[in-house]
Amino acid sequence: MSGLKQQLSLRVENDLNDIEAALHENLNPHVELVRDVAGHLIFSGGKRIRPLLNLLCARLCGYTDDFIKKFSTIIEFLHTATLLHDDVVDEAALRRGKPVAHSIWGAPVTVLVGDFLLARALNIAAETGNPRIIQIISEITESMCQGEILQLIKKGDVNLSEADYMDVIRRKTGFLIQGACQTGAILAGAPEDVEARLARYGHHIGMVFQIADDLLDYTADTRTLGKTIGADLKEGKLTLPVIHTLEKAGTWDRSWLAELIARKEFSADEFGAVLRLMHEAGAIDYCRGIAENHVREAKKIIASFPPSQTTETLALIADYTLNRKA
Amino acid sequence: MSGLKQQLSLRVENDLNDIEAALHENLNPHVELVRDVAGHLIFSGGKRIRPLLNLLCARLCGYTDDFIKKFSTIIEFLHTATLLHDDVVDEAALRRGKPVAHSIWGAPVTVLVGDFLLARALNIAAETGNPRIIQIISEITESMCQGEILQLIKKGDVNLSEADYMDVIRRKTGFLIQGACQTGAILAGAPEDVEARLARYGHHIGMVFQIADDLLDYTADTRTLGKTIGADLKEGKLTLPVIHTLEKAGTWDRSWLAELIARKEFSADEFGAVLRLMHEAGAIDYCRGIAENHVREAKKIIASFPPSQTTETLALIADYTLNRKA
Repeated sequence: MSGLKQQLSLRVENDLNDIEAALHENLNPHVELVRDVAGHLIFSGGKRIRPLLNLLCARLCGYTDDFIKKFSTIIEFLHTATLLHDDVVDEAALRRGKPVAHSIWGAPVTVLVGDFLLARALNIAAETGNPRIIQIISEITESMCQGEILQLIKKGDVNLSEADYMDVIRRKTGFLIQGACQTGAILAGAPEDVEARLARYGHHIGMVFQIADDLLDYTADTRTLGKTIGADLKEGKLTLPVIHTLEKAGTWDRSWLAELIARKEFSADEFGAVLRLMHEAGAIDYCRGIAENHVREAKKIIASFPPSQTTETLALIADYTLNRKA
Repeated sequence: MSGLKQQLSLRVENDLNDIEAALHENLNPHVELVRDVAGHLIFSGGKRIRPLLNLLCARLCGYTDDFIKKFSTIIEFLHTATLLHDDVVDEAALRRGKPVAHSIWGAPVTVLVGDFLLARALNIAAETGNPRIIQIISEITESMCQGEILQLIKKGDVNLSEADYMDVIRRKTGFLIQGACQTGAILAGAPEDVEARLARYGHHIGMVFQIADDLLDYTADTRTLGKTIGADLKEGKLTLPVIHTLEKAGTWDRSWLAELIARKEFSADEFGAVLRLMHEAGAIDYCRGIAENHVREAKKIIASFPPSQTTETLALIADYTLNRKA
């Protein structure tokens, strides 16, 4: 699948360089420490999927103005703000293979820099002069926080249903990626139905993105992933592979797994046993199947636009989102 | 001075009731826990100075629409968001005489509910349909975070100058109160010079507010204040009374005070000795003098408007801000 990554990289190289430059230009803090803390995470090799989608969707709708580079940072700053706060909330140790910000600068500074980035995102959104953009961005933020809170409340709850899970990931991940696509269309002045179609495309990409992310916690290796494998389970964060396994497992296995989740600690051997249970339940294939449906829907929407370089790239992104290794 | 409070209360009772109702109506979370956590702080007897100033400044500029009630919640939600995060950052125990949110619900939920309120504030700001309002609100937020970060960096630094202190409080407190007044004027469609004058009024009120707050930490009693006396000093937070005392104290006293600040722990007797040093340095009078100047400037600005019930109230607020007991 690295062929897919390479194919995509070549297509979006210039756009990614533009986004990178815009992120540097628009961070713009008054306090130097803010640049260090925010920069530590922002410039640590993020995939830039969100600003890229924003830019591509705007382009698909005929937007040609250079401002889009700046506006695409709205989504990435907002995303980074939530990552900073999430890492504090989750007491994570690694992110993208690096120690998380709060382990270097402490939770207080990290929380405040997260707030700064959130405000920075909304300040740039205000520069669009378009209240709808701002409304969408602030609604996304409201939803994301509540998605995270829901996830927090439900930690360790072995009765979490697939529907609950879908609600959480739609809020915490789906809305932002949907918003990236939708605001791209709005900035380009696209007609309502086009805006709605691209929002829908973003929704599907967002769902794939999070399901793939949650799968990686059981299928990747720590080095490639840049964070500790099995971290979700250790935190009591029940994602789709575990939810499906709990649903399909026999009484005995289910009790064993529930007990392991409750104690939040397990050996490598025990984690191996979890993976075997998942395999028996067909959980990985089940999750992939759901994600593949979303990929299919996303590509169907893109196919409804006149074919262009941009539609090809947006279709490739759908494939890449599912098949990435980290 | 309770006469002043009573005089003010009678004048603004209806407005405060309107603000209270609007805060209940517009909190509007999807997740019930958010209402509990946010409500714990929002409905714990805040003074509502900020939304009140917003409403009064709009009225002074001829605004009559009922929407102002809703818009005044922008400032209070934003304020509450920063309080939630500040209490996490400062590891405070009490706020308004109640245990702080994070001691009940934990820091993670508190951080996320703070984010929700920040987003809620900006969402309502977007409803004004006025990008300038949103820009001001997001710039205020950027400044506040950076003010808090500056304060954090400077904790325990006995070389903090009066100018540094003024910069910190302008950012962390002044800008929001200034913004409350300025956005009131903008919502009313006031001409630029009126907007600038009311922003200036707000700036002075903000400075008085924070200097008075910092004084209370050395002059009030714990029960009236609703938080622990001497808490600032225990945190290593150097405010104007201490900065001035350090400046005026002799070499020996200065070293003693610096050592006490460095160790962040002290007995009631030692705190008594700090208060005596402050008294000798004339620090309390010095701070009051600076605050009184700001009160005078604020009232001068209000006196430049045609006299009305509203100008009288705004002048009273200037006095009250300095002379409140908590």
